[in-house]
Amino acid sequence: MGNKVSITVIRRLPKYYRYLGELLNKGIARISSQELSTLTGFTASQIRQDLNNFGGFGQQGYGYNVSELYRELGKILGLDKVYNAVIAGAGNLGQAVANYRGFEDAGFKVLSLFDKNPKIIGLKIRDIEIRDVDLMENFIKENNVEIGIITTPKENAQDIANTYAKSGLRGIWNFAPADLKVPENIVVENVHLNESLFILSYFLKRNLGGNSH
Amino acid sequence: MGNKVSITVIRRLPKYYRYLGELLNKGIARISSQELSTLTGFTASQIRQDLNNFGGFGQQGYGYNVSELYRELGKILGLDKVYNAVIAGAGNLGQAVANYRGFEDAGFKVLSLFDKNPKIIGLKIRDIEIRDVDLMENFIKENNVEIGIITTPKENAQDIANTYAKSGLRGIWNFAPADLKVPENIVVENVHLNESLFILSYFLKRNLGGNSH
Repeated sequence: MGNKVSITVIRRLPKYYRYLGELLNKGIARISSQELSTLTGFTASQIRQDLNNFGGFGQQGYGYNVSELYRELGKILGLDKVYNAVIAGAGNLGQAVANYRGFEDAGFKVLSLFDKNPKIIGLKIRDIEIRDVDLMENFIKENNVEIGIITTPKENAQDIANTYAKSGLRGIWNFAPADLKVPENIVVENVHLNESLFILSYFLKRNLGGNSH
Repeated sequence: MGNKVSITVIRRLPKYYRYLGELLNKGIARISSQELSTLTGFTASQIRQDLNNFGGFGQQGYGYNVSELYRELGKILGLDKVYNAVIAGAGNLGQAVANYRGFEDAGFKVLSLFDKNPKIIGLKIRDIEIRDVDLMENFIKENNVEIGIITTPKENAQDIANTYAKSGLRGIWNFAPADLKVPENIVVENVHLNESLFILSYFLKRNLGGNSH
Protein backbone atom coordinates (compact mmCIF):
# COMPACT_ATOMS: atom_id res chain seq x y z
CA MET A 1 0.00 0.00 0.00
CA GLY A 2 2.84 2.37 0.80
CA ASN A 3 3.72 2.67 -2.86
CA LYS A 4 0.38 4.10 -3.85
CA VAL A 5 -0.06 6.77 -1.21
CA SER A 6 1.08 10.15 -2.50
CA ILE A 7 4.09 11.85 -0.95
CA THR A 8 1.87 14.84 -0.11
CA VAL A 9 -0.30 12.65 2.11
CA ILE A 10 2.70 10.98 3.68
CA ARG A 11 4.23 14.35 4.52
CA ARG A 12 1.14 15.20 6.57
CA LEU A 13 1.31 12.05 8.69
CA PRO A 14 4.08 13.25 11.04
CA LYS A 15 1.96 16.28 11.91
CA TYR A 16 -1.03 14.09 12.81
CA TYR A 17 1.30 11.91 14.81
CA ARG A 18 2.72 14.85 16.73
CA TYR A 19 -0.68 16.27 17.65
CA LEU A 20 -2.01 12.86 18.66
CA GLY A 21 1.00 12.46 20.96
CA GLU A 22 0.15 15.78 22.60
CA LEU A 23 -3.52 14.79 23.01
CA LEU A 24 -2.42 11.51 24.53
CA ASN A 25 -0.20 13.36 27.00
CA LYS A 26 -3.21 15.46 28.00
CA GLY A 27 -5.25 12.30 28.65
CA ILE A 28 -7.68 12.89 25.79
CA ALA A 29 -9.18 9.56 24.67
CA ARG A 30 -10.99 10.40 21.46
CA ILE A 31 -11.14 13.16 18.87
CA SER A 32 -13.28 13.99 15.84
CA SER A 33 -11.87 14.84 12.42
CA GLN A 34 -13.37 18.30 13.01
CA GLU A 35 -11.34 18.79 16.19
CA LEU A 36 -8.23 17.44 14.47
CA SER A 37 -8.91 19.98 11.74
CA THR A 38 -8.89 22.85 14.24
CA LEU A 39 -5.60 21.61 15.66
CA THR A 40 -3.75 20.86 12.45
CA GLY A 41 -5.21 23.42 10.05
CA PHE A 42 -6.07 20.71 7.50
CA THR A 43 -9.77 20.33 6.59
CA ALA A 44 -11.78 17.59 8.27
CA SER A 45 -12.50 15.92 4.95
CA GLN A 46 -8.81 15.96 4.02
CA ILE A 47 -7.96 14.34 7.34
CA ARG A 48 -10.56 11.60 6.81
CA GLN A 49 -9.27 11.01 3.28
CA ASP A 50 -5.64 10.93 4.41
CA LEU A 51 -6.29 8.41 7.15
CA ASN A 52 -8.54 6.28 4.94
CA ASN A 53 -5.47 5.58 2.81
CA PHE A 54 -4.21 3.38 5.60
CA GLY A 55 -7.46 1.72 6.62
CA GLY A 56 -10.55 3.06 8.38
CA PHE A 57 -9.42 4.22 11.78
CA GLY A 58 -12.40 6.48 12.52
CA GLN A 59 -15.94 5.55 13.45
CA GLN A 60 -18.89 7.66 12.40
CA GLY A 61 -20.32 9.56 15.38
CA TYR A 62 -17.38 8.59 17.58
CA GLY A 63 -14.34 9.98 15.82
CA TYR A 64 -10.89 8.55 16.38
CA ASN A 65 -9.54 6.67 19.37
CA VAL A 66 -6.45 8.77 20.14
CA SER A 67 -4.16 6.09 21.53
CA GLU A 68 -5.08 3.58 18.84
CA LEU A 69 -4.59 6.08 16.01
CA TYR A 70 -1.31 7.25 17.56
CA ARG A 71 -0.01 3.70 17.78
CA GLU A 72 -1.12 2.82 14.26
CA LEU A 73 0.38 5.97 12.74
CA GLY A 74 3.59 5.20 14.61
CA LYS A 75 3.66 1.78 12.93
CA ILE A 76 2.91 3.29 9.52
CA LEU A 77 5.77 5.73 10.02
CA GLY A 78 8.07 2.89 11.03
CA LEU A 79 8.62 4.26 14.52
CA ASP A 80 8.12 0.84 16.09
CA LYS A 81 11.54 -0.25 14.84
CA VAL A 82 15.02 0.78 15.99
CA TYR A 83 17.54 1.88 13.34
CA ASN A 84 21.25 2.29 13.93
CA ALA A 85 22.63 5.55 12.54
CA VAL A 86 25.95 7.34 12.08
CA ILE A 87 26.69 11.01 11.49
CA ALA A 88 29.33 12.24 9.03
CA GLY A 89 30.46 15.74 9.96
CA ALA A 90 30.94 16.40 13.68
CA GLY A 91 30.80 20.19 13.62
CA ASN A 92 28.07 22.16 15.36
CA LEU A 93 25.31 20.80 13.19
CA GLY A 94 26.46 17.19 13.56
CA GLN A 95 26.72 17.66 17.31
CA ALA A 96 23.27 19.26 17.41
CA VAL A 97 21.84 16.27 15.57
CA ALA A 98 23.67 13.86 17.89
CA ASN A 99 22.14 15.69 20.86
CA TYR A 100 18.72 15.93 19.27
CA ARG A 101 16.09 14.69 21.70
CA GLY A 102 13.52 13.69 19.09
CA PHE A 103 15.99 11.24 17.64
CA GLU A 104 15.69 8.33 20.01
CA ASP A 105 11.93 8.82 20.31
CA ALA A 106 11.78 8.15 16.59
CA GLY A 107 13.73 4.92 17.08
CA PHE A 108 17.07 6.13 15.76
CA LYS A 109 20.24 5.31 17.66
CA VAL A 110 23.41 7.21 16.77
CA LEU A 111 26.36 4.83 17.20
CA SER A 112 29.16 7.14 16.10
CA LEU A 113 30.07 10.49 14.62
CA PHE A 114 32.78 10.72 11.97
CA ASP A 115 35.01 13.61 10.98
CA LYS A 116 38.35 14.23 9.28
CA ASN A 117 39.48 16.93 11.72
CA PRO A 118 42.16 15.35 13.98
CA LYS A 119 41.44 17.95 16.70
CA ILE A 120 38.01 16.51 17.43
CA ILE A 121 38.55 12.82 16.62
CA GLY A 122 38.37 10.91 19.90
CA LEU A 123 36.07 13.40 21.63
CA LYS A 124 32.61 12.35 22.76
CA ILE A 125 29.18 13.97 22.33
CA ARG A 126 27.07 12.55 25.15
CA ASP A 127 28.47 9.02 25.00
CA ILE A 128 28.97 9.00 21.26
CA GLU A 129 32.55 8.96 20.05
CA ILE A 130 33.86 11.01 17.12
CA ARG A 131 35.92 8.69 14.92
CA ASP A 132 38.14 9.20 11.88
CA VAL A 133 36.02 9.28 8.73
CA ASP A 134 38.42 6.79 7.12
CA LEU A 135 37.04 4.18 9.50
CA MET A 136 33.41 4.88 8.60
CA GLU A 137 32.80 2.34 5.86
CA ASN A 138 33.99 -0.60 7.95
CA PHE A 139 32.18 0.67 11.03
CA ILE A 140 28.89 0.75 9.14
CA LYS A 141 29.38 -2.77 7.80
CA GLU A 142 30.35 -4.18 11.20
CA ASN A 143 27.61 -2.47 13.24
CA ASN A 144 24.49 -3.04 11.18
CA VAL A 145 24.06 0.69 10.54
CA GLU A 146 21.07 1.48 8.32
CA ILE A 147 20.99 5.28 8.35
CA GLY A 148 23.72 7.74 7.46
CA ILE A 149 23.38 11.40 8.32
CA ILE A 150 25.31 14.06 6.40
CA THR A 151 26.18 17.25 8.27
CA THR A 152 29.39 18.04 6.37
CA PRO A 153 29.95 21.09 4.17
CA LYS A 154 28.37 20.85 0.74
CA GLU A 155 31.72 20.12 -0.93
CA ASN A 156 32.10 16.81 0.92
CA ALA A 157 28.50 15.63 0.79
CA GLN A 158 28.65 13.57 -2.42
CA ASP A 159 31.85 11.79 -1.30
CA ILE A 160 30.18 10.86 1.97
CA ALA A 161 27.08 9.69 0.09
CA ASN A 162 29.31 7.49 -2.09
CA THR A 163 30.89 5.93 0.99
CA TYR A 164 27.46 5.37 2.49
CA ALA A 165 26.29 3.69 -0.72
CA LYS A 166 29.37 1.42 -0.80
CA SER A 167 28.89 0.43 2.81
CA GLY A 168 25.37 -0.89 2.27
CA LEU A 169 23.35 1.76 4.14
CA ARG A 170 19.64 2.03 3.32
CA GLY A 171 18.79 5.64 4.13
CA ILE A 172 20.47 9.05 4.13
CA TRP A 173 19.34 12.10 6.11
CA ASN A 174 21.08 14.92 4.28
CA PHE A 175 21.59 18.41 5.71
CA ALA A 176 24.06 19.58 3.04
CA PRO A 177 22.64 21.90 0.36
CA ALA A 178 23.30 19.41 -2.43
CA ASP A 179 21.16 16.94 -4.35
CA LEU A 180 22.93 13.66 -3.85
CA LYS A 181 23.31 11.02 -6.50
CA VAL A 182 22.80 7.58 -4.95
CA PRO A 183 21.77 4.11 -6.11
CA GLU A 184 18.02 3.64 -6.42
CA ASN A 185 17.70 1.39 -3.40
CA ILE A 186 18.81 4.13 -0.99
CA VAL A 187 16.26 6.59 0.42
CA VAL A 188 17.41 10.21 0.69
CA GLU A 189 15.54 12.70 2.87
CA ASN A 190 16.86 16.24 2.56
CA VAL A 191 16.75 19.05 5.08
CA HIS A 192 17.60 22.07 2.94
CA LEU A 193 18.02 24.85 5.49
CA ASN A 194 18.90 27.50 2.92
CA GLU A 195 15.75 26.76 0.93
CA SER A 196 13.67 27.18 4.06
CA LEU A 197 15.41 30.47 4.75
CA PHE A 198 14.73 31.70 1.20
CA ILE A 199 11.03 30.98 1.68
CA LEU A 200 11.04 33.09 4.84
CA SER A 201 12.81 35.85 2.96
CA TYR A 202 10.24 35.64 0.14
CA PHE A 203 7.34 36.22 2.51
CA LEU A 204 9.13 38.96 4.44
CA LYS A 205 9.87 40.88 1.28
CA ARG A 206 6.18 40.78 0.40
CA ASN A 207 5.09 41.71 3.91
CA LEU A 208 2.91 38.64 4.01
CA GLY A 209 2.25 37.29 7.47
CA GLY A 210 1.03 33.88 8.59
CA ASN A 211 2.40 30.39 8.66
CA SER A 212 4.24 29.72 5.41
CA HIS A 213 3.29 26.02 5.26
CA MET B 1 1.60 39.24 -7.58
CA GLY B 2 3.18 37.43 -4.64
CA ASN B 3 -0.19 36.80 -3.08
CA LYS B 4 -1.54 34.82 -5.97
CA VAL B 5 1.35 32.45 -6.58
CA SER B 6 0.76 29.13 -4.82
CA ILE B 7 3.02 28.06 -1.97
CA THR B 8 3.88 24.91 -3.94
CA VAL B 9 5.39 27.01 -6.71
CA ILE B 10 7.18 29.28 -4.25
CA ARG B 11 8.73 26.28 -2.51
CA ARG B 12 10.33 25.24 -5.81
CA LEU B 13 11.99 28.62 -6.40
CA PRO B 14 14.91 28.10 -3.97
CA LYS B 15 15.84 24.94 -5.84
CA TYR B 16 15.92 26.77 -9.18
CA TYR B 17 17.95 29.49 -7.52
CA ARG B 18 20.47 27.02 -6.13
CA TYR B 19 21.00 25.26 -9.47
CA LEU B 20 21.30 28.54 -11.35
CA GLY B 21 23.97 29.64 -8.88
CA GLU B 22 25.90 26.45 -9.62
CA LEU B 23 25.57 26.96 -13.38
CA LEU B 24 26.77 30.53 -12.96
CA ASN B 25 29.81 29.31 -11.03
CA LYS B 26 30.59 26.95 -13.91
CA GLY B 27 30.42 29.84 -16.38
CA ILE B 28 27.33 28.58 -18.19
CA ALA B 29 25.52 31.52 -19.83
CA ARG B 30 22.20 30.06 -20.92
CA ILE B 31 20.06 27.01 -20.29
CA SER B 32 16.87 25.52 -21.72
CA SER B 33 13.89 24.47 -19.62
CA GLN B 34 14.70 20.93 -20.79
CA GLU B 35 18.22 21.11 -19.34
CA LEU B 36 16.85 22.66 -16.14
CA SER B 37 14.44 19.75 -16.01
CA THR B 38 17.28 17.23 -16.12
CA LEU B 39 19.02 19.08 -13.29
CA THR B 40 16.08 19.67 -10.98
CA GLY B 41 13.87 16.68 -11.67
CA PHE B 42 10.86 18.91 -12.39
CA THR B 43 9.31 18.66 -15.88
CA ALA B 44 10.24 21.30 -18.47
CA SER B 45 6.64 22.44 -18.75
CA GLN B 46 6.34 22.82 -14.99
CA ILE B 47 9.50 24.91 -14.95
CA ARG B 48 8.18 27.17 -17.70
CA GLN B 49 4.84 27.53 -15.89
CA ASP B 50 6.53 28.24 -12.56
CA LEU B 51 8.75 30.96 -13.98
CA ASN B 52 5.91 32.47 -16.02
CA ASN B 53 4.23 33.34 -12.72
CA PHE B 54 6.87 35.99 -12.25
CA GLY B 55 7.10 37.30 -15.82
CA GLY B 56 8.48 35.76 -18.97
CA PHE B 57 12.17 35.17 -18.37
CA GLY B 58 12.68 32.63 -21.13
CA GLN B 59 12.90 33.15 -24.87
CA GLN B 60 11.72 30.55 -27.33
CA GLY B 61 14.66 28.89 -29.06
CA TYR B 62 17.15 30.47 -26.68
CA GLY B 63 16.11 29.32 -23.23
CA TYR B 64 17.02 31.27 -20.11
CA ASN B 65 19.87 33.68 -19.55
CA VAL B 66 21.43 32.12 -16.44
CA SER B 67 22.78 35.25 -14.77
CA GLU B 68 19.64 37.27 -15.46
CA LEU B 69 17.32 34.54 -14.18
CA TYR B 70 19.54 34.03 -11.12
CA ARG B 71 19.46 37.74 -10.31
CA GLU B 72 15.71 38.03 -10.86
CA LEU B 73 14.92 34.96 -8.76
CA GLY B 74 17.17 36.40 -6.04
CA LYS B 75 15.06 39.56 -6.06
CA ILE B 76 11.82 37.57 -6.01
CA LEU B 77 13.13 35.62 -3.03
CA GLY B 78 14.07 38.86 -1.29
CA LEU B 79 17.79 37.99 -1.22
CA ASP B 80 18.76 41.48 -2.40
CA LYS B 81 17.94 42.89 1.05
CA VAL B 82 19.79 42.49 4.38
CA TYR B 83 17.78 41.45 7.44
CA ASN B 84 19.03 41.62 11.00
CA ALA B 85 18.35 38.45 12.97
CA VAL B 86 18.70 37.10 16.51
CA ILE B 87 18.77 33.52 17.76
CA ALA B 88 16.97 32.38 20.93
CA GLY B 89 18.56 29.21 22.28
CA ALA B 90 22.36 29.07 22.13
CA GLY B 91 22.82 25.31 22.46
CA ASN B 92 24.34 23.19 19.70
CA LEU B 93 21.56 23.90 17.24
CA GLY B 94 21.60 27.66 17.89
CA GLN B 95 25.37 27.66 17.50
CA ALA B 96 25.12 25.62 14.31
CA VAL B 97 22.66 28.15 12.89
CA ALA B 98 24.92 31.05 13.99
CA ASN B 99 27.80 29.38 12.17
CA TYR B 100 25.72 28.49 9.15
CA ARG B 101 27.47 29.64 5.98
CA GLY B 102 24.36 29.97 3.85
CA PHE B 103 23.01 32.56 6.24
CA GLU B 104 24.87 35.64 5.16
CA ASP B 105 24.62 34.66 1.50
CA ALA B 106 20.85 34.89 1.95
CA GLY B 107 21.20 38.38 3.40
CA PHE B 108 20.65 37.50 7.03
CA LYS B 109 22.93 38.96 9.68
CA VAL B 110 22.86 37.43 13.17
CA LEU B 111 23.42 40.22 15.69
CA SER B 112 23.14 38.20 18.89
CA LEU B 113 22.30 34.86 20.43
CA PHE B 114 20.20 34.70 23.60
CA ASP B 115 20.01 32.05 26.29
CA LYS B 116 18.99 31.69 29.91
CA ASN B 117 21.93 29.50 30.89
CA PRO B 118 24.36 31.68 32.92
CA LYS B 119 27.25 29.34 32.02
CA ILE B 120 27.20 30.37 28.38
CA ILE B 121 25.99 33.99 28.62
CA GLY B 122 28.89 36.24 27.60
CA LEU B 123 30.54 33.66 25.34
CA LYS B 124 30.94 34.34 21.66
CA ILE B 125 30.17 32.23 18.57
CA ARG B 126 32.37 33.66 15.83
CA ASP B 127 31.98 37.32 16.83
CA ILE B 128 28.40 36.97 17.97
CA GLU B 129 27.80 37.36 21.70
CA ILE B 130 25.44 35.17 23.74
CA ARG B 131 23.30 37.48 25.89
CA ASP B 132 20.77 36.95 28.66
CA VAL B 133 17.36 36.18 27.18
CA ASP B 134 15.83 38.79 29.52
CA LEU B 135 17.57 41.45 27.43
CA MET B 136 16.19 40.14 24.17
CA GLU B 137 13.05 42.23 23.75
CA ASN B 138 14.88 45.54 24.18
CA PHE B 139 17.78 44.40 22.02
CA ILE B 140 15.39 43.64 19.16
CA LYS B 141 13.67 47.01 19.47
CA GLU B 142 16.95 48.92 19.63
CA ASN B 143 18.73 47.11 16.78
CA ASN B 144 16.13 47.00 14.05
CA VAL B 145 15.95 43.20 14.17
CA GLU B 146 13.41 41.74 11.77
CA ILE B 147 13.94 37.99 12.10
CA GLY B 148 13.87 35.85 15.22
CA ILE B 149 15.18 32.30 15.15
CA ILE B 150 14.00 29.73 17.68
CA THR B 151 16.41 26.92 18.58
CA THR B 152 15.20 26.38 22.15
CA PRO B 153 13.57 23.20 23.44
CA LYS B 154 9.93 22.80 22.49
CA GLU B 155 8.74 23.81 25.98
CA ASN B 156 10.16 27.34 25.64
CA ALA B 157 9.27 27.96 22.02
CA GLN B 158 5.87 29.63 22.50
CA ASP B 159 7.24 31.97 25.21
CA ILE B 160 10.02 33.04 22.88
CA ALA B 161 7.52 33.54 20.07
CA ASN B 162 5.45 35.74 22.39
CA THR B 163 8.50 37.86 23.21
CA TYR B 164 9.31 38.10 19.50
CA ALA B 165 5.74 39.22 18.76
CA LYS B 166 5.86 41.88 21.52
CA SER B 167 9.18 43.20 20.27
CA GLY B 168 7.85 43.94 16.79
CA LEU B 169 9.72 41.29 14.78
CA ARG B 170 8.35 40.41 11.34
CA GLY B 171 9.50 36.86 10.78
CA ILE B 172 10.27 33.72 12.80
CA TRP B 173 12.44 30.80 11.69
CA ASN B 174 11.34 28.05 14.04
CA PHE B 175 13.32 24.85 14.70
CA ALA B 176 11.28 23.72 17.73
CA PRO B 177 8.76 20.94 17.09
CA ALA B 178 5.79 23.15 17.97
CA ASP B 179 3.21 25.05 15.94
CA LEU B 180 3.54 28.60 17.20
CA LYS B 181 0.63 30.93 17.74
CA VAL B 182 1.60 34.42 16.58
CA PRO B 183 -0.21 37.56 15.37
CA GLU B 184 -1.20 37.46 11.71
CA ASN B 185 1.39 40.00 10.59
CA ILE B 186 4.30 37.74 11.55
CA VAL B 187 5.61 35.11 9.09
CA VAL B 188 6.57 31.76 10.56
CA GLU B 189 8.74 29.31 8.65
CA ASN B 190 9.14 25.97 10.41
CA VAL B 191 11.97 23.46 10.16
CA HIS B 192 10.44 20.38 11.74
CA LEU B 193 13.38 17.99 11.99
CA ASN B 194 11.39 15.22 13.64
CA GLU B 195 8.83 15.27 10.83
CA SER B 196 11.60 14.94 8.28
CA LEU B 197 13.01 12.02 10.24
CA PHE B 198 9.61 10.32 10.36
CA ILE B 199 9.37 10.56 6.57
CA LEU B 200 12.76 8.85 6.25
CA SER B 201 11.59 6.17 8.64
CA TYR B 202 8.38 5.69 6.63
CA PHE B 203 10.30 4.99 3.44
CA LEU B 204 12.85 2.78 5.17
CA LYS B 205 10.16 0.62 6.67
CA ARG B 206 8.68 0.11 3.21
CA ASN B 207 12.08 -0.57 1.64
CA LEU B 208 11.38 2.15 -0.89
CA GLY B 209 14.46 3.80 -2.32
CA GLY B 210 14.84 7.11 -4.11
CA ASN B 211 14.66 10.74 -3.19
CA SER B 212 11.70 11.27 -0.90
CA HIS B 213 10.90 14.76 -2.21
